[in-house]
Amino acid sequence: MLADRVRYKPLQDKINDPATAAEHIQDGTNLFISGFTAGYPKLIPRELVRRSENGEDFKINLFAGASTGDMVDGKLARADLVAWRRPYMSDKFMREKINLGKIAFKDDHLSQLSAKVRAGQWGQCDVAVVEAAAITEQGHLIPTMSVGNTPTYVQKANKIIIEISANSPKLEGIHDIFIPEDPPYRMPIPIYRTVDRIGKPFIAMDPDRVVAILFSTEQDHCPIFTPPNAAASRIAEYILDFVHHEIKKDRMPSSLPWQAGVGDVANAVLSGFLKDNNFHSIDIYSEVLQDSVLDLIDLGKVRAASGSALTLSEKARERFLNDIDRYRDKVVLRPVEISNAPEVIRRLGVIAINTAIEVDIYGQVNSTHVMGTQLMNGIGGSGDFLRNGAVSMIVTPSTAKGGLISAIVPMVSHVDHSEHSVDVVVTEYGLVDTRPLTPRQVAEQIIKKCAHPDFRDQLWDYYQRAVRERGGHEPHILEKVFFMHQRFLESGDMRVKAFPS
Amino acid sequence: MLADRVRYKPLQDKINDPATAAEHIQDGTNLFISGFTAGYPKLIPRELVRRSENGEDFKINLFAGASTGDMVDGKLARADLVAWRRPYMSDKFMREKINLGKIAFKDDHLSQLSAKVRAGQWGQCDVAVVEAAAITEQGHLIPTMSVGNTPTYVQKANKIIIEISANSPKLEGIHDIFIPEDPPYRMPIPIYRTVDRIGKPFIAMDPDRVVAILFSTEQDHCPIFTPPNAAASRIAEYILDFVHHEIKKDRMPSSLPWQAGVGDVANAVLSGFLKDNNFHSIDIYSEVLQDSVLDLIDLGKVRAASGSALTLSEKARERFLNDIDRYRDKVVLRPVEISNAPEVIRRLGVIAINTAIEVDIYGQVNSTHVMGTQLMNGIGGSGDFLRNGAVSMIVTPSTAKGGLISAIVPMVSHVDHSEHSVDVVVTEYGLVDTRPLTPRQVAEQIIKKCAHPDFRDQLWDYYQRAVRERGGHEPHILEKVFFMHQRFLESGDMRVKAFPS
Repeated sequence: MLADRVRYKPLQDKINDPATAAEHIQDGTNLFISGFTAGYPKLIPRELVRRSENGEDFKINLFAGASTGDMVDGKLARADLVAWRRPYMSDKFMREKINLGKIAFKDDHLSQLSAKVRAGQWGQCDVAVVEAAAITEQGHLIPTMSVGNTPTYVQKANKIIIEISANSPKLEGIHDIFIPEDPPYRMPIPIYRTVDRIGKPFIAMDPDRVVAILFSTEQDHCPIFTPPNAAASRIAEYILDFVHHEIKKDRMPSSLPWQAGVGDVANAVLSGFLKDNNFHSIDIYSEVLQDSVLDLIDLGKVRAASGSALTLSEKARERFLNDIDRYRDKVVLRPVEISNAPEVIRRLGVIAINTAIEVDIYGQVNSTHVMGTQLMNGIGGSGDFLRNGAVSMIVTPSTAKGGLISAIVPMVSHVDHSEHSVDVVVTEYGLVDTRPLTPRQVAEQIIKKCAHPDFRDQLWDYYQRAVRERGGHEPHILEKVFFMHQRFLESGDMRVKAFPS
Repeated sequence: MLADRVRYKPLQDKINDPATAAEHIQDGTNLFISGFTAGYPKLIPRELVRRSENGEDFKINLFAGASTGDMVDGKLARADLVAWRRPYMSDKFMREKINLGKIAFKDDHLSQLSAKVRAGQWGQCDVAVVEAAAITEQGHLIPTMSVGNTPTYVQKANKIIIEISANSPKLEGIHDIFIPEDPPYRMPIPIYRTVDRIGKPFIAMDPDRVVAILFSTEQDHCPIFTPPNAAASRIAEYILDFVHHEIKKDRMPSSLPWQAGVGDVANAVLSGFLKDNNFHSIDIYSEVLQDSVLDLIDLGKVRAASGSALTLSEKARERFLNDIDRYRDKVVLRPVEISNAPEVIRRLGVIAINTAIEVDIYGQVNSTHVMGTQLMNGIGGSGDFLRNGAVSMIVTPSTAKGGLISAIVPMVSHVDHSEHSVDVVVTEYGLVDTRPLTPRQVAEQIIKKCAHPDFRDQLWDYYQRAVRERGGHEPHILEKVFFMHQRFLESGDMRVKAFPS
C-alpha cells in the first residue's frame, strides 16, 4: 500500500522510521513544516518530544503555514523545544510561553510569508517536514488537507522529510499549486474567478533532497466548532440583510465572493446562508474552509470554494473524504500567498468577514492581544482580507467572559487593523456601516447599536466627556482611555454605571 | 489661443465666466474636483467665496483627489462653505474646522477611493470641476499636473466645469489614464514595469455634460520644500546604506522601484541619491513626485518615474515645463487608484518610505493625529505603499517642536499602520530592521537606536517596568502608557529624567 503512495521508485528506498529520520533535526535546526490548521506532520514532532523526554537538550526554530494541532505546537512548547516560532499560532501552551518571553514569536501577514522565506529573510531552510497524501511518478508531492507555505518550504529546504498520511487516500486533484515569481520582474497572478486553477495539482519537489519517508496513521485534530449560538446567528442575519440591501440599492454587485475568518462566529456567518433565500450560488474565496462550506455545497448553494486549508470536524472530514469526487469539483486548495493575495482579493472584490478580540468606538480593531499585552493568537490573514476586500466587516459578540468584558471599548488596547480597513462593525445587537460616517458619527453609532446594554452608559459618558474636554477629530481622554481595561485588570469585571470622574 | 486648447469645436460655445459657471453649484451640491497636491481648480473656488462674501448662505460637499492649495481648502474652509470633505487634506484652516467638528471629514486609503465613488458609496456626483491643459479634437480632457481621481469624477459627473490652465501648454502625452474594471469580473492591471503605459493620454469625457469652460491664468501653489536639513540627510544615508547592504547580502534584488511619501524628509531621502555612488538607474513608483525627482532625472539617475502628481516648487515647475519634451520620456502621471494599486506595488516590489507623526517602541505608527485626537492630515497613500511594499520603512526625525516632543513613544496615541506593515524604522539616530526581531527585541532596539538621547532613559524605564510588572508578548502598563503625551498636554514638554513611579 505504501508503494501506491510513493510512486516515484527511487524514493521507496528512503522509507524509514521516525527516530532515524529525526536525526536530521538537531539543536538550532530551522525546521519548516507543513500545516495550516490541518495537514501538519505528526510523527516527527512526537519523536522530538521523545528525545527530549530521554534527556536530550536541544531547541529548534519552528516555521509552519499557520496554526497546527496540539501534537505540534502544544507538545513541542510543553517540552521546551521551541526557540523561535513563526508565523500564526493559537495553541494555549505555546501562547503561555510566548507571553513569558520564553518562545520568540513574530507575527506576519500570511500573504507575505512565502516571499520573505524565498528572499532569505528567515534564514536557511535546513529541514522541511511535510505531511503528504502521495509522491507522484515524477517525484512530486501531493499535500493533504492544507497547502499553506509548503510549496516554498519544499523548494527552499536542504533536506525534506515526508510523512505519508494513511488517511488521505484520494486527495489528488484538489490542490492548485502556483508559486508566484518574485519582484521586480513578474507577471500578475492569473486568477479571475474563484474556481480558476492556475498551477499544478502537486508541489514540485527535487526528490534528491528527500532524506526520509515515514508512514503515518495519525489524524489531524482540528478545533471543534460548536454549532452557532444565538449571538452568532443574529450576527449572521445582520450581515446577510445588509448585503442583500446593498445589492438591492445597486451599491454592490450580486456575485461578489465571500471570505470568513476562522472560528465559531465566522463559521456561523456562512451557516446563515443555509436558511437564507436571497443567495443561491455563492463563491467562497477564503483562507480556511470549515464545516459550513461542506453543508452549503451539499445544499447546492456553492459555485466554488477556494482556500488554503480544509479545517473540518472529524465527522465532516469523513463525509468529505467519502465523497471527495463530488467535492473536488467545487473545492480548490491553494498556497496561502495565493488564497490571501491582495491582488486577487481586490480583483475579485471579496466580502471579507473577520472576528476580533475588541473593537473601539472609532472602529480600530484588536485581533491578537488580550488587555494589550497577552498574545492570544496571530493576526493571520485578517489583514490581507480586511484591507483588500470590497466590503470589510468586523464581527464579534458584544461581550466576552460571560458579560464581564465588553468587546466595544473606548480605545482598543492593541491595534491590528486601523479604522481605514474596516467598513462595517457587527455584534449581536446591531450593524454599523462606517463608510459614510465621520469618526464621531461612527462612535455614536457603535455605542448605540453594537455595544452591549450593560456597557452603553459608560461608553457614552466617556465619549461625551472626551468631546467636551478634548475635542478633535477623534476625541479621547488619553489618561483615562483604558479605564475599562484597568478596571478589569483590578477587579475582573469591566461593568460599572458610568465613566469615573 | 483658447481655441487651441478647446479643440473640440462644439465646446467652444461653452466658454463662459466663473460667476455664470458657478451657478451650477448651490447649497448641498456634491462637488468633485481635480487636484492632488497640484492641478486643482482655482476660479470656481474663488467665485464660491465671493458669493459667500456677498451674503449668500450655502454649503457644499467637497471631494478631491487628495490635498489642494490654500485657494481651495483654505479659502473654502475660512468662508465656512464646506459641509463634508473627503479624502486627504492637509490645510491648516480646514484642519482646525475638522477638529472642531464643524467640517465633516472621513479619511480613506487613496487606492480605494475611485472604486467607492463608482460604486455610488459617496452619493451622486452632481458637478465636477476640473483643471485641464486642453480638450482634444474628440472632446476628451488633458489634465494638468495631477490625475488623482479625476478620470472617475469626470466619468460619473452629471455636470462638468473645466478650467483651462494657461500655464500648462505642453502637458499632453505625460498622462496615462486607465480606469480599472470593477469587481467581481475584471482583469489584472497590466503594469509590469514602472515605465509601462497602459491607457490613453487623455481622460475620456462625454462633452455633452460639459456646462462651462473657463480660462485660468492662476498657478498651483505647492508647499515649499526646504532643502534637506542634517537630520533628514542622515536618515537618507541610513536608508541607502541599509538597502545597499541588503542587496550585497543577496536579500533584495538591485532593481526594486522606490516610493517616497510627501514632505521634506521624503524629499530628502530621494535627494540622498544625488550624492550616492551605488545606485545608477533607479525606478520611482510613487504617488507624488517632488523636486528631487527632477534633480535625479537631470543627473541621469532615473530610468522612469511614475506618480499621480507632480508637486513642484515654482522654480522646478518652470524647469519642468521649459524642458518637458525631455522629461516626458521619463515621467508618467496615472490615476491614484493605479499609482497606489496594491496589486502593482506588490508586483513590482516597491521600497516604500513614508513619514510619521510618531512611532511606538513596538513599531506601531501614527501618521495622522497629534496627541491622538487632533487631525493633522489624512492617511493618504501611506497605507497602500507600506502594506504592499517589498520593504516598508517609516522615517521621522526623533523629535518635534525643537526637542520638546519625542517621535518615539511607549504607545502611539493613534494607530494608522500596525507593526505588521512596518519593516524598518529610521530616525537621524539610527535604523532598526524589525523583520527578524520579536516585539520585545524591537522595543529594545528602537529605544537604543532611534530615540533621541533626551528620551531614552524614560522610554527604557517604562519598558523595563512594563516587562517586570505586566509582561506579555508586548508589555505595556495601560494606565501609564500615555504618560509622555499627558505630560506634554500639561506642560508643553515631554522631557523628564525617568518614567514616573
